[in-house]
Amino acid sequence: MINIKSAYLNTRNQFLTLCSNLETEDYSVQPTEFVSPPKWHLAHTTWFFEQFVLKEFSSEYTVYNDDFAYLFNSYYNNAGERVLRPNRGLMTRPTVKEVYAYRNYVDSKMVVFLDSNPSKKALEIIELGINHEQQHQELFYYDIKYIFGNQPTFPTLKNSIALNDITQKQEFITIKEGVYQIGHNTAGFSFDNELGVHKTYLHQFKISNNLTTNAEYIAFIEAGGYSNFNLWHAEGWDFITKNNITAPLYWHKVKDTWHYYTLNGFKPVEPNKPVTHISMYEAYAYAEWKQMRLPTEFEWEVASEYLNYGQLWEWTNSAYLPYPSFSKAPGALGEYNGKFMINQHVLRGASIATPENHSRKTYRNFFQADMRWLFSGIRLAQ
Amino acid sequence: MINIKSAYLNTRNQFLTLCSNLETEDYSVQPTEFVSPPKWHLAHTTWFFEQFVLKEFSSEYTVYNDDFAYLFNSYYNNAGERVLRPNRGLMTRPTVKEVYAYRNYVDSKMVVFLDSNPSKKALEIIELGINHEQQHQELFYYDIKYIFGNQPTFPTLKNSIALNDITQKQEFITIKEGVYQIGHNTAGFSFDNELGVHKTYLHQFKISNNLTTNAEYIAFIEAGGYSNFNLWHAEGWDFITKNNITAPLYWHKVKDTWHYYTLNGFKPVEPNKPVTHISMYEAYAYAEWKQMRLPTEFEWEVASEYLNYGQLWEWTNSAYLPYPSFSKAPGALGEYNGKFMINQHVLRGASIATPENHSRKTYRNFFQADMRWLFSGIRLAQ
Amino acid sequence: MINIKSAYLNTRNQFLTLCSNLETEDYSVQPTEFVSPPKWHLAHTTWFFEQFVLKEFSSEYTVYNDDFAYLFNSYYNNAGERVLRPNRGLMTRPTVKEVYAYRNYVDSKMVVFLDSNPSKKALEIIELGINHEQQHQELFYYDIKYIFGNQPTFPTLKNSIALNDITQKQEFITIKEGVYQIGHNTAGFSFDNELGVHKTYLHQFKISNNLTTNAEYIAFIEAGGYSNFNLWHAEGWDFITKNNITAPLYWHKVKDTWHYYTLNGFKPVEPNKPVTHISMYEAYAYAEWKQMRLPTEFEWEVASEYLNYGQLWEWTNSAYLPYPSFSKAPGALGEYNGKFMINQHVLRGASIATPENHSRKTYRNFFQADMRWLFSGIRLAQ
Amino acid sequence: MINIKSAYLNTRNQFLTLCSNLETEDYSVQPTEFVSPPKWHLAHTTWFFEQFVLKEFSSEYTVYNDDFAYLFNSYYNNAGERVLRPNRGLMTRPTVKEVYAYRNYVDSKMVVFLDSNPSKKALEIIELGINHEQQHQELFYYDIKYIFGNQPTFPTLKNSIALNDITQKQEFITIKEGVYQIGHNTAGFSFDNELGVHKTYLHQFKISNNLTTNAEYIAFIEAGGYSNFNLWHAEGWDFITKNNITAPLYWHKVKDTWHYYTLNGFKPVEPNKPVTHISMYEAYAYAEWKQMRLPTEFEWEVASEYLNYGQLWEWTNSAYLPYPSFSKAPGALGEYNGKFMINQHVLRGASIATPENHSRKTYRNFFQADMRWLFSGIRLAQ
Repeated sequence: MINIKSAYLNTRNQFLTLCSNLETEDYSVQPTEFVSPPKWHLAHTTWFFEQFVLKEFSSEYTVYNDDFAYLFNSYYNNAGERVLRPNRGLMTRPTVKEVYAYRNYVDSKMVVFLDSNPSKKALEIIELGINHEQQHQELFYYDIKYIFGNQPTFPTLKNSIALNDITQKQEFITIKEGVYQIGHNTAGFSFDNELGVHKTYLHQFKISNNLTTNAEYIAFIEAGGYSNFNLWHAEGWDFITKNNITAPLYWHKVKDTWHYYTLNGFKPVEPNKPVTHISMYEAYAYAEWKQMRLPTEFEWEVASEYLNYGQLWEWTNSAYLPYPSFSKAPGALGEYNGKFMINQHVLRGASIATPENHSRKTYRNFFQADMRWLFSGIRLAQ
Repeated sequence: MINIKSAYLNTRNQFLTLCSNLETEDYSVQPTEFVSPPKWHLAHTTWFFEQFVLKEFSSEYTVYNDDFAYLFNSYYNNAGERVLRPNRGLMTRPTVKEVYAYRNYVDSKMVVFLDSNPSKKALEIIELGINHEQQHQELFYYDIKYIFGNQPTFPTLKNSIALNDITQKQEFITIKEGVYQIGHNTAGFSFDNELGVHKTYLHQFKISNNLTTNAEYIAFIEAGGYSNFNLWHAEGWDFITKNNITAPLYWHKVKDTWHYYTLNGFKPVEPNKPVTHISMYEAYAYAEWKQMRLPTEFEWEVASEYLNYGQLWEWTNSAYLPYPSFSKAPGALGEYNGKFMINQHVLRGASIATPENHSRKTYRNFFQADMRWLFSGIRLAQ
Repeated sequence: MINIKSAYLNTRNQFLTLCSNLETEDYSVQPTEFVSPPKWHLAHTTWFFEQFVLKEFSSEYTVYNDDFAYLFNSYYNNAGERVLRPNRGLMTRPTVKEVYAYRNYVDSKMVVFLDSNPSKKALEIIELGINHEQQHQELFYYDIKYIFGNQPTFPTLKNSIALNDITQKQEFITIKEGVYQIGHNTAGFSFDNELGVHKTYLHQFKISNNLTTNAEYIAFIEAGGYSNFNLWHAEGWDFITKNNITAPLYWHKVKDTWHYYTLNGFKPVEPNKPVTHISMYEAYAYAEWKQMRLPTEFEWEVASEYLNYGQLWEWTNSAYLPYPSFSKAPGALGEYNGKFMINQHVLRGASIATPENHSRKTYRNFFQADMRWLFSGIRLAQ
Repeated sequence: MINIKSAYLNTRNQFLTLCSNLETEDYSVQPTEFVSPPKWHLAHTTWFFEQFVLKEFSSEYTVYNDDFAYLFNSYYNNAGERVLRPNRGLMTRPTVKEVYAYRNYVDSKMVVFLDSNPSKKALEIIELGINHEQQHQELFYYDIKYIFGNQPTFPTLKNSIALNDITQKQEFITIKEGVYQIGHNTAGFSFDNELGVHKTYLHQFKISNNLTTNAEYIAFIEAGGYSNFNLWHAEGWDFITKNNITAPLYWHKVKDTWHYYTLNGFKPVEPNKPVTHISMYEAYAYAEWKQMRLPTEFEWEVASEYLNYGQLWEWTNSAYLPYPSFSKAPGALGEYNGKFMINQHVLRGASIATPENHSRKTYRNFFQADMRWLFSGIRLAQ
């Protein structure tokens, strides 16, 4: 029990550390539909433990505030009416202070509950809740960057995460043809979408040890990559044309030099760092331009031990689809993954925004092809 | 000089009183395009004095922060690039605290300037700035009501303004046919759109002494007013159909009884108070249903001395158009009124949200026909 | 009876002349919401006589096809369910041939009816129906120009209407201050919106005898008129910015020379013809640039005898509002005008597309400020 | 040579047969963005032979009309500027008659060319052009059904295609686990997306011999399938909610009985025919409700010999992605398939609208998940 209690407390405290430099005003805004206000993340992750653990398993538990289930439920249709997503940023109340009080209340009850010898089922859901909160901690980074990066004054998040230079020489690793095993099969935690170990047949392929750098991507831009429709999916071409996209998100050309906003400030683009904030469409077009391709998620998983990864989530050319023996959990928790298995793409790896111990080689992250605010990157295959 | 200095300070301090019950979070959100965050009002009205008074007339003045002109300029195209209107709610920085510091800084400089025997021209602009700030104080009420009234928790603004019951018996005053004089012709302040006294010919008409009450409006609703297209402008019918409008803004039916959100809380609709938060379309349809009409702004001005007014701005059936000798001031201040003289309607009177001494019988307020968040009301004519 | 019968037949036959050069395909398309397919105009004007004359007054009349009331009713909410406006162009059936058969059927019945000594009430409605059809004949010109002018191949309407050069020297006529009479007061036909002669007070003004020419308008364009926001209504500025408007509709710059599409073909802009296909916003901005203004509809009516008019409808700076004693007819015919009296502007005069004898000095045409496909022009006042 | 010439002529003539009951008006409209006017199909398929065969390989060929390349190019970015897709329905010119003349002209030149001993390369492109035209003949059925099925008068296409009753008993065929071969590997024609025979690993599965019937689908509707979000993808739920979808396209409830529009008329839904005009979202939700799933495209291909198929294209739970050795042809023909390989789903089989000899077991059809106007159906797996 020690372990899960300390995992719980570490994760919960970690969110406070992430927010330690925020002003009250920063917690409440929602600049676009796919971004959630930090306050909402703090409350929603708390609600998860209240709803699925304390209300289910702790007979003495008194709900903190009946309205909160309605206010901070994200997408769990089975758990009651929800605040529509685009309206999250309109809620000035409860205040940040009240949300922290809610966190404290739930944490204190959770500590008591964790000390009371919870059932295996309860412990499993707590573990899921910890992983759920870690996912929201990563989303917090995407969201605060979007909130700050779209303001005229470019605020910074002090002492924030930063990418490292890619220093190793690029090589292409060859993986032999054959039947491989895919999916999570060890003792530790995984999400339902990784479960069901199964076989897949891979033909021989090569895969880069490194991610694509900013310097390499600038070469693509300067070669006219954004104006050559032959490199793009038809849908990607429409996307960049309609939205006037000519560079990664947060990039601005200042006096002929590319600059970008990072959480540590606005600065010239650093050539040796991996390129990020590109959509699936851009990753694909870049690979086309290099006359290569993106790996599939199965190729990635099989080759993972040879790859330098962990700085950025890597777009694969795999749609997010169920594994052969995938099945949804009953009730609201079954909404976690299955219902998103359409028109999204799998990203593999992890990013500098990913909490420690949160990722693994079988982890299947997923987003729509036009999303650019996540910490995404490019790895080539052929 | 005493007078204008105390007018300045009274108006500036009044805004702090209005905001005294706000939480920090309440200052920053913009729930819809036509609503501005309270923080923005506080900064924008300050910027007006900085931009048009201190920078113009005070040689020693040092601008507080060069970015603020860009951030808090509303629509003055001549005064530099502006933050696009829908993005006002995305600015978490400068913080509320910084905005108050900005106000204090400008106020202290203005006090020095006001004590330094300013030119007549400067005094005129200060007077305009005071009236400008009063307009934003009224908009603040509309905006905070929209911000609170669209949250699931319905926060209140403590000790807030409230409408009074209409107690006088309804009568229709008859005004005789003839040539009348229209426009501002006294010594006091007026906006440019009221200037240019001129003659107009009115045919005989009758006008109600009172505004329409909630009880009277509920009769219209219950008679099927919102589903009888014969009562509506074609455009109004499209508006209510497309937006599923079946009652004034902030009204909700709870167990067969109409309730509404007010700044003092959510409660059953009070029958004897004047109906408010209706669009021009609804005011027109109501009048059609009564087989009467709305007055023109000229009829209203001529009859004003006989009317009970001041609780709500009254939709007139007059488009907002220039008076015969209207002319715009040169430069940015010329943008104040003239450029809005199309597709808007004149409202006459004043509301409980109007600052003291801000309105007068020649005052021409104006909004688009579909606006409902203002404190609008209905007066019948025939 | 001779007169109205021949008026009826002349008007009905006139529509066939207008369409004599059309291909079957040209009758059925609806390139944008505010344009109707020619087939629809032909059927709708026929339906008017069937619905309001034959069905009402002719006891022997058998409806041609029960579906047609539904298919070809335009906006008469009181006359049954209607095909939604944007869907008019989706109806490939009934075919053009069937629509002409419908016209023939109704015309033959109308001739019998007209010979049967109809009641005064019936004759009034027939007169309204003739004027209604004339309005649609004018709209037909706007619509076919839009249909052809937006095709890559620029088809022409053979032997079509064309504007004349303005040859008279420009002068400004002065009209003295005073009380004037406005509205229709002669024996002939008028629409309900012109009725109710009433007095209005006009201050002294000057008005141009001529319309603005293409050459004059090109000077405005070349002086940067479309990029100087000081000249525009705020709403007009948004309109031209959002839609990238930098010249009148149908104008294209080919090798540094302005060309335009006319019903007689694509050609260089003719300098001495009056400028047309401009929105109210553009008319206003042009007048601002000339440091003048547009006349009101009352000024126009009073000055009309001194004006060269009839080539283009002239935007006035008057909103379309009811005259003091305006009242709607009961039932569906009451929908003719009153329900449009909001957010539209009055145009006075007539155009080359207006059928003979259809206009008069009291005629109040009206459109939304952003409409450009009509035959609109500019006359200055000061 | 005999074979390809007769294949060419048969295919070309077949399109005339399909259109033999159309009125001129039916050829020109575009009721929604994804539907093309029949005239456009007729011209575009002709342009294909002109552009890629005659202009490339026939030195004497004179282009019929230089504008047509611009007007009738669909998506071949490499072959010049194109008419934007939503504008196809605005082109009333060239007329239907001219388009048929264009077809005759190109056909006569093609016959001469086919008799002139064309190169192998040319013959390959002609074969591609024939298959391309067959695809448009199938799209013609989808489009004319949409054009007719959305008109108030429900026109019919005389002697049109019709679905057959499903008479065989439903069974689930078991396919054993193992490595299977996928892709086109016989001598005949295939598209580039089927090429590259490769291995895939399948786990054991069961698949229905039959498609789902209307009766079975009505059971799903009546069990509340369209209002139970647990059955739907999140994106599918948004889709049906936003568009008020409660039944397949073309279905209407008339006095408690489901009816549908078919090309042979409006009639009660026939219980034993396979359900069609459902989106991928609906196919998925139906399978969820049955506690089964849709097959993958690989499962389908391996099991195909045991399936009753050919009436409707079958949604698979496979995203449309490249096969391991997929490569695009150079130039405009390379745009045929590859650039659509994102956010679309594979359908396998064939439909009653598919031209004879056009499909095969390796054929990969593909559409977006929200498309309903195609002849789509459901086959269950588990």
